[in-house]
Amino acid sequence: MISQAVIKEFERILGKEKVFLDETDRHTYSYDAAVLEPVLPSVVLRPTSSEELGRLVRICNENSIPLTVRGAGTNLSGGTIPKKGGAVVLTNALNKILEINTEDLYAIVQPGVVTAKFAAAVEAKGLFYPPDPGSQAVSTLGGNVAENAGGLRGLKYGVTRDYVMGLEFFDVNGEIVKTGSRTVKCVTGYNLAALMVGSEGTLGVFDKIILKLIPMPTGRKAMMAIFDNVIKASETVAAIIAHRIVPATLEFMDNFTIRTVEDYSRVGLPTDAAALLLIEVDGHPAQVEEDAAKVESICREMGAMKIRVAQDAAERDKVWEARRAALSALAKLKPTVVLEDATVPRSKIPAMIQALEEISRRFNLTIGTFGHAGDGNLHPTILTDKRNKEEWHRVEAAIDAIFDKALGLGGTLSGEHGIGMAKSRYLEKETSKGTILFSRRIKAALDPKGILNPGKIIGE
Amino acid sequence: MISQAVIKEFERILGKEKVFLDETDRHTYSYDAAVLEPVLPSVVLRPTSSEELGRLVRICNENSIPLTVRGAGTNLSGGTIPKKGGAVVLTNALNKILEINTEDLYAIVQPGVVTAKFAAAVEAKGLFYPPDPGSQAVSTLGGNVAENAGGLRGLKYGVTRDYVMGLEFFDVNGEIVKTGSRTVKCVTGYNLAALMVGSEGTLGVFDKIILKLIPMPTGRKAMMAIFDNVIKASETVAAIIAHRIVPATLEFMDNFTIRTVEDYSRVGLPTDAAALLLIEVDGHPAQVEEDAAKVESICREMGAMKIRVAQDAAERDKVWEARRAALSALAKLKPTVVLEDATVPRSKIPAMIQALEEISRRFNLTIGTFGHAGDGNLHPTILTDKRNKEEWHRVEAAIDAIFDKALGLGGTLSGEHGIGMAKSRYLEKETSKGTILFSRRIKAALDPKGILNPGKIIGE
Repeated sequence: MISQAVIKEFERILGKEKVFLDETDRHTYSYDAAVLEPVLPSVVLRPTSSEELGRLVRICNENSIPLTVRGAGTNLSGGTIPKKGGAVVLTNALNKILEINTEDLYAIVQPGVVTAKFAAAVEAKGLFYPPDPGSQAVSTLGGNVAENAGGLRGLKYGVTRDYVMGLEFFDVNGEIVKTGSRTVKCVTGYNLAALMVGSEGTLGVFDKIILKLIPMPTGRKAMMAIFDNVIKASETVAAIIAHRIVPATLEFMDNFTIRTVEDYSRVGLPTDAAALLLIEVDGHPAQVEEDAAKVESICREMGAMKIRVAQDAAERDKVWEARRAALSALAKLKPTVVLEDATVPRSKIPAMIQALEEISRRFNLTIGTFGHAGDGNLHPTILTDKRNKEEWHRVEAAIDAIFDKALGLGGTLSGEHGIGMAKSRYLEKETSKGTILFSRRIKAALDPKGILNPGKIIGE
Repeated sequence: MISQAVIKEFERILGKEKVFLDETDRHTYSYDAAVLEPVLPSVVLRPTSSEELGRLVRICNENSIPLTVRGAGTNLSGGTIPKKGGAVVLTNALNKILEINTEDLYAIVQPGVVTAKFAAAVEAKGLFYPPDPGSQAVSTLGGNVAENAGGLRGLKYGVTRDYVMGLEFFDVNGEIVKTGSRTVKCVTGYNLAALMVGSEGTLGVFDKIILKLIPMPTGRKAMMAIFDNVIKASETVAAIIAHRIVPATLEFMDNFTIRTVEDYSRVGLPTDAAALLLIEVDGHPAQVEEDAAKVESICREMGAMKIRVAQDAAERDKVWEARRAALSALAKLKPTVVLEDATVPRSKIPAMIQALEEISRRFNLTIGTFGHAGDGNLHPTILTDKRNKEEWHRVEAAIDAIFDKALGLGGTLSGEHGIGMAKSRYLEKETSKGTILFSRRIKAALDPKGILNPGKIIGE
C-alpha cells in the first residue's frame, strides 16, 4: 500500500485531478486484454509532461512502489496488469506528435500517441509508418514499442523494432537516458533503444520515441483466394514465398473464423470456404501488376477454387476491416477467448495448421485459426469459459501442446503478443537456463528494487 | 600476465598448435585499423569448435583474464585492440555457414565467416544479404555484428542490426544464451540479440548468428553525376531523398578523393570534378527505369555538369570497386590516416560538407571527404603523420570540431565504425550522464570482473 505522504507528494506534483484513488477508477486499470485475473492498483496517475513523468518514476523508486505504465491496455499477455497495491501511470496525456520530418524520414513522438492517428498523420505527408497491430485504432506507440508490436505487414515491412531509431527514457531513478539517433546509422554506445523494445516496461519508462518513416508505396492490389481445403491454403502460403514474392500482407482464415466474421461484419465472405487467404501486394505499379498476376497463378496451381481481386480501394478496405474484426467477432461467441500467437518459420505453416486441427480434436475444443500466415504468425483462438474448470484444464493442456508443436517446428512462443505474465513460465523451454539468468542480471542491475512492472517476462 | 597453469589448461583444451605464445604472433594481433597504439596480448587462442570457445570463456573469467575476440581486425575504433597481458580469441576457424534456408529466408553462420563469401553464397541461391561494409572482402560476420557494421547500402537496406534475427552466445561464465528466432516475428524474452549487436565484444562471445535474407532485386542501374561545386553535389543528395527516391547507394567523393582514387585505380574518374555522386537504384526493372530517370533529371536541375550512366555490369562494378578503394588509396599518401564517421540527418549533408571545408582550412589540414552521403554518413579522412606532434594536436582539435558540428546538426558521433577506445570519452557529449551510468550497470551485471574486451565503449 502507498502511504498518505506519498499520495500527497503525487498530488503536489500532478495536481489532485490527475491522481485517481476511487475504486471505480482503479478497477478500470486493473486488467488488460489477456485472460488473467484483474489486480487492483492503489493509485492511478496521469502525468501531462516529461518532467512530471520523470518525477513520478523517481518517487516510486524511492518508496519501493511497483509502477506499471499503461497505454491503451490492449495487451494480450498481461503486460499492463499492475502489481497489487502499486501505481498505474497512464500515458494518454503524453500524446503529442513532436515532429514529422519529411526530409530525413523520421518522426518524434510521445509514448501516448495512438498508432492509427500517427499512421494517418504520417500518410498525410506522403510517408508510411508500416507497423499495424490489430489494436492500432486505440493502441499507443509507447505500448507498441514496449511490446514490439507486430501486425499484418510484418512479412514485408517488419515489426515495431524495425522502426525504432532512438529513444529517450527514464531509468528507475528518474534519470534521462538517450539512445539511438535521428540518423539511419548510429553505433554510438550500446544499442539500448533495441533492448528497451519489447522489454514490457520492466527496464525504464519511455519519454520520447524516434520512429523511422519510409516512402509510401505507389501501387497496391488486394485479393482473396478461396480454398475448399485448409492444407491447400496453407501450402499456398509457402509456395508464394518460395517464388520470391513478399506480399505486404498474407493472411489466413479458417472456416470457423470466416463464418464468425461474416456473421459479425456482413462483408460478403464466402462462408462455405474451408479457408481463405487475403493477400495484398504493394510497391511500384509495374511490380504490383506482376506480383499480383504471379500470386493469382500460384493460388490457382495450388488449387484455389476462386480468386476475387478487389476492384477499388473501398472493396479492399472492406476486406481488411473484416479481417481486423476477427478477434472482436470471435470474442462475442464465448465468455473466454484465448488468443495465442505461437509462430513458426513460414514454410512450416502447413504443419502447424495440421497440428492445430489435431489439437482441437484431441482436447475437444473450439479453435478458430486466423492470422499472419505469411510471416508464420498464426492466431489459434480458443473459445471457452474459464468458469468451466474441467474445460479450462483442457484449454491449458491444448496451449501447452501448441507451444510444444511450434518449438518443435523451429518456431517461437510469441510472435507479437509478448511474454507478460501469461507465458513467463514457458520461457526457458525455448531458450535456456543461461538466458533466463542473463536476463535477470540485466533486470536486477537496472531495477534493483524490482519496481518496474514486476513479474513480467522473467517472473518475479 | 597469465599463469603457466592456465596456459597448460588452454593447451589441454585446444591442443598446443592452437595456442600462440610467440612474440611475433602476439604482435600480429596487437593492433587493428584504428590509429591507436598496439597493445601486446599474452596469448592468442584459436578455437575450432563451439565447445572449445565456451570453455575458453569460462577459464578466462575464472582466472580474470581479459579476453578480446578478433575476426579480421579491420576495426576502425580500436575495438579489437586487446588488453595488455590478456588473451585474443580468433574466430577464423569458426567459419562455417551452417544453413542457408531459401524457403524461410534466413541463414545460420558461425562468427568467423567472411562477409563477402557469405554474401556470394547467398547470392548463388538467388537471395540477398545487403550489409556491405567497406572491409567486406576480409571482415567477418561476427565482427560485423559486434560492431553493427554499415556499408554502402545503409540508405535503402539498413545496417547489420537490421539483419540479425537471432544469436546464440556465451555469457562471461561460458553459459549459452539463446535469443531471437528463425521467424520474422519473435517477442520471446528480452531483445538480447539486439543488445549484443554493436556491443563490441563487451557483453558476451558469439557462437552462432541467425541472419535475415531477402529476395535479390531484379533490376539495378548505376550512374555517376559530376559537379563543379561541392555544395551543389551535397544539395543534390538531399533533393533526391526529398523526392521520395531511396537509392540502394548514394555515395559522395570530393575532388581530393577523386584524384587520389584515380591515381590508385585508373578507372577513368573525372579528376577535374569538384565532386562526384555515385548513385545506384535497384528494384523492379520498371521502378529502376523510372527512378534512374528521375535521379538524372534531379541531378541536372541541381547543376550537375555531366551524368554518366553505367552501360553494363562490368562498367558498374568498376566504379564501385574504385569507390571501395578510397580508403586504401588515401592511406598510401601519408603515414597516418584518420577516417572519421560522424553522421548527420541526410538533409544536413550540405551543412556538414561546408563545415568540413571550413575545419580543413581552420586547422590547416588535408581532409579528403567521401562516403555514404545518402544516409548522412560521411567519412572525412584526415591525412597526417602522428609523429609530427604539432600537427597531431591540430588533428585532435579538428576531430573535436567535427564531432561538435555533427552533434550540433542533430547527428551522431559514429555511424558505423563504433566507439571502441577511440571515441569512448566523447560518448557523454551525445547522450547523457544517465546513459553512461545505465550502460555501466548493464556491463557490471553481465561481466562483473570486467574481462570481456575491457575499455571499449564505456571506458574502463
